[in-house]
Amino acid sequence: MSDIKMIEAAAHRARGHVRRTPLLSSPFLDEIAGRRVLVKAECLQHTGSFKFRGAWSALSGLTPERRAAGVLAFSSGNHAQGVALAAKLHGVPATIIMPQDAPALKIDNTRAFGAEVVLYDRAGREKREEIGARLQADRGLTLIRPYDEPLVIAGQGTCGLEIAEQAAEQGVTEAEVLSCCGGGGLTSGIALALEARAPRMRVRPVEPEGFDDTARSLVSGAIVRNSGPETGFCDAILTPSPGEITFPIMAARCGPGLVVSNVEVRAAMRLAAARLKLVIEPGGAVALAAALFHGDALEGDAVIATASGGNVDLALYSEVLSEAA
Amino acid sequence: MSDIKMIEAAAHRARGHVRRTPLLSSPFLDEIAGRRVLVKAECLQHTGSFKFRGAWSALSGLTPERRAAGVLAFSSGNHAQGVALAAKLHGVPATIIMPQDAPALKIDNTRAFGAEVVLYDRAGREKREEIGARLQADRGLTLIRPYDEPLVIAGQGTCGLEIAEQAAEQGVTEAEVLSCCGGGGLTSGIALALEARAPRMRVRPVEPEGFDDTARSLVSGAIVRNSGPETGFCDAILTPSPGEITFPIMAARCGPGLVVSNVEVRAAMRLAAARLKLVIEPGGAVALAAALFHGDALEGDAVIATASGGNVDLALYSEVLSEAA
Repeated sequence: MSDIKMIEAAAHRARGHVRRTPLLSSPFLDEIAGRRVLVKAECLQHTGSFKFRGAWSALSGLTPERRAAGVLAFSSGNHAQGVALAAKLHGVPATIIMPQDAPALKIDNTRAFGAEVVLYDRAGREKREEIGARLQADRGLTLIRPYDEPLVIAGQGTCGLEIAEQAAEQGVTEAEVLSCCGGGGLTSGIALALEARAPRMRVRPVEPEGFDDTARSLVSGAIVRNSGPETGFCDAILTPSPGEITFPIMAARCGPGLVVSNVEVRAAMRLAAARLKLVIEPGGAVALAAALFHGDALEGDAVIATASGGNVDLALYSEVLSEAA
Repeated sequence: MSDIKMIEAAAHRARGHVRRTPLLSSPFLDEIAGRRVLVKAECLQHTGSFKFRGAWSALSGLTPERRAAGVLAFSSGNHAQGVALAAKLHGVPATIIMPQDAPALKIDNTRAFGAEVVLYDRAGREKREEIGARLQADRGLTLIRPYDEPLVIAGQGTCGLEIAEQAAEQGVTEAEVLSCCGGGGLTSGIALALEARAPRMRVRPVEPEGFDDTARSLVSGAIVRNSGPETGFCDAILTPSPGEITFPIMAARCGPGLVVSNVEVRAAMRLAAARLKLVIEPGGAVALAAALFHGDALEGDAVIATASGGNVDLALYSEVLSEAA
């Protein structure tokens, strides 16, 4: 099956289950950016991030027998919640392996979506992959990878189908499309969808400073890794490198990557609250930050930014909003 | 023309101009409420509140000649922004009369939407109605009332048409529908729409403590006024009494009013941010507060709450979010 056919099939399976999130705008943002800005409000997706799309696609794409045996994911964040809810709605068990020092709220949320959470000690003897392998063998679970998985990429691609349709409804068929980029699942899914449905749009990954592995990989033509720490403000999108499946998709289709500072991300979070009435998490605000503050690096009269998630701790969020604009 | 025909006509004129806002939900909110909770995210409407619906309806319903001469509104808040943007998009002048001590941000926003702002001194010799009458006479402007105006009520009713359709798509045809209530434009518009399109739904106005003029008017069967001050936390919906046109519509169709505390409103604002990723202003959170915290006063398995606006000052909003849940 071709890529676009896989995405269309994922969209068909998603109907009535995955939210069609709105493509929002504000004249105040247009003025800051100096061009039209359209924001794909994926923070309004079930579980508060686009990850539910890929999880639903993966779960609904399994054979009934494999699905019934249950699914497994490694995640301390949005992918965990997406897989947990998709499994619950399919009526099958989900096991999520999380570090025992993950934020209590994220563990609680994942459990609230019905998943069994298996905690592991990051410093302990048994690695999470070993725990996962044992659970897969013992229970016959299917591992749902967060981005290097064709069904997941196809699911994220449904976001691209919606962008093409909704932008056309608003008269936009030519634009730079900025995608918040961690492992590249959303970025590559959108790139595949737009290649088929909106060929005059160009997708560009956006990353935070110090975690620009995808931007550098696109420049060098091969996967390169981040050398620094693996934690930071934009926690949802801090992966060490683009994926082995996602990178070639991006390399063949995407424009150059963009890199934003945490100060710009914080400003974008405030503007999303003030002008769009959206709560966006740091990792979900990088694309909007690039759209607003890196206009010199963009082409054309319109830019589309994904707001990929909204799962930010309220104490941190409150602090960001309290800063002077 | 019948009421529902007027609303349908307003919906027809609105197509492509007024946003179809999503009807959102979260299992976490369902659990708090003890029933399904659907939230009509009208804070995502253009200008950040439902007021744009009524303003668009009123502007688009004028004859071209009257419209071209320009429109006039009294407002320091959401109605001002709605009228200003609707006029700008129609290419006609808007004049908004605002108190000179209105928040600078609201004056700036109204001007940014292209309106001419005429400031008056609340304590001064000339009353705003006199200023308005003079401007109407001198410039031939048409006054757009915030709620006691059939075209405005019809515009707000388009929100009710969407609620009926979107709830049915989610399997809900019977529910209590809670509407944030100031002068009653939104509440009466939704009540008229649902009477025709979802007769098993019952609309109920929600107000903040101390400003329960509509709830008390419904009990007494005649318009009663608030005796206290005219300012407070839920500023967007603090009117002294229901309107002369809106009250009879509500009295004939709505269930008893609900009254919520500011503490409940603040909690609802936090839960909307955490669980729905929506920024809701105090006056736009009263219906959700009632849905979540006044379940004993509700009937049935499902409740629908309007989140009527999101225009809250970020400093205040940050303070609300920083409070312990």
